[in-house]
Amino acid sequence: MKQLNKKAVILLSGGLDSATCLALARQQGYDCYAMSFDYGQRHKAELNAARLIADHLCVSDYKIVTIDMAGIGGSALTDSNIDVPEEPTDGIPVTYVPARNTIFLSLALGWAEVLNAADIFIGVNAVDYSGYPDCRPTFIEAYEALANLATRRGVEQGDIAIKTPLIHLSKADIIKAGMAIGADYALTVSCYQASDSGEACGCCDSCRLRSKGFADAGIKDPTRYMAIN
Amino acid sequence: MKQLNKKAVILLSGGLDSATCLALARQQGYDCYAMSFDYGQRHKAELNAARLIADHLCVSDYKIVTIDMAGIGGSALTDSNIDVPEEPTDGIPVTYVPARNTIFLSLALGWAEVLNAADIFIGVNAVDYSGYPDCRPTFIEAYEALANLATRRGVEQGDIAIKTPLIHLSKADIIKAGMAIGADYALTVSCYQASDSGEACGCCDSCRLRSKGFADAGIKDPTRYMAIN
Repeated sequence: MKQLNKKAVILLSGGLDSATCLALARQQGYDCYAMSFDYGQRHKAELNAARLIADHLCVSDYKIVTIDMAGIGGSALTDSNIDVPEEPTDGIPVTYVPARNTIFLSLALGWAEVLNAADIFIGVNAVDYSGYPDCRPTFIEAYEALANLATRRGVEQGDIAIKTPLIHLSKADIIKAGMAIGADYALTVSCYQASDSGEACGCCDSCRLRSKGFADAGIKDPTRYMAIN
Repeated sequence: MKQLNKKAVILLSGGLDSATCLALARQQGYDCYAMSFDYGQRHKAELNAARLIADHLCVSDYKIVTIDMAGIGGSALTDSNIDVPEEPTDGIPVTYVPARNTIFLSLALGWAEVLNAADIFIGVNAVDYSGYPDCRPTFIEAYEALANLATRRGVEQGDIAIKTPLIHLSKADIIKAGMAIGADYALTVSCYQASDSGEACGCCDSCRLRSKGFADAGIKDPTRYMAIN
């Protein structure tokens, strides 16, 4: 593996996409700093998964930042009074967490600045993306422009980049890319309402996209599903 | 006072600028939702001040969001190993907190989206601004563009605005504007290293700017300074 000796911050949710993103950053020779958020999400299984993935892919440092987003509410993922839908919906779904990627990128930007890292990886995807506004290429471009105005490094060097290696890939292509470089998807949890031990519901939008991805890629799905399915 | 029946989120630090900003939003007829952050800052006096200011200016709701920015470090305001300078410095000072306004605006944006508010007030100032990159008009313009790409309301209505009524005012003019509409600066704490009871050091950059502002405005400084000064 080549060694760039170049630091990157990687947003790591514990799901399939961000695990692939970390594997790709590592394969590109980055010295990887992974960051997750305890933001009042429905379950902690994805944070347990993120820690295992960070260990498996040998990050230089791993940080879980606590933010009280449940106090803001407004999403099925942070407000237990809003149900996670089990059928596809039109438009922006209720699992959309207001400003989530904006908030996560901002904390990653803060850490990148302390580390003097120019590159931030985020596993957003504009193909199988559930209709979230903050997964689109225009959003990422605007964020990169902002990052170069917002920070010391941005002002002085102007080289801050938001890296989105998955943005134009289908879920099947993401899975194939990750498998080729050692991502272990058995460690990942994508389900919006996983059990504490990381078993997936098999019904939510995220489970459906993931399951279809493995089928389309012709790769055996390693997901542990709840017994009820 | 006119009533717009229009909601706004106001970032409230407990300092002089954000208190003025809230007073101006209220005077413009907004239904005000104030937000502060417990982000690992050196002292809690500014949060106590923010709560008093929010009560005094009759906000509809007040929220303190906890974020563990001390874990990221990199600033004299969040890392007790870095001293707050007591003399003016060139360039971006060590009291700059990496990506702070970006992070705070992002959480305000999330709350604004839940409230269906289009307007976010932030008391940044490009005149007496200590040299922070995230207080400049170009940063604010880039953030507003981002906000309209990042969120449901931005995508559907495109009317999210970052309001910066203080951006081109001197500290003296801010003080005069606030005094004219009922801001109570005795409640505010600007000092970077205030005591728990809110007494100011009188030496740090923020104290110097504030003290000069009152002198230039010809208004008696209501700040409580520590006995040592």
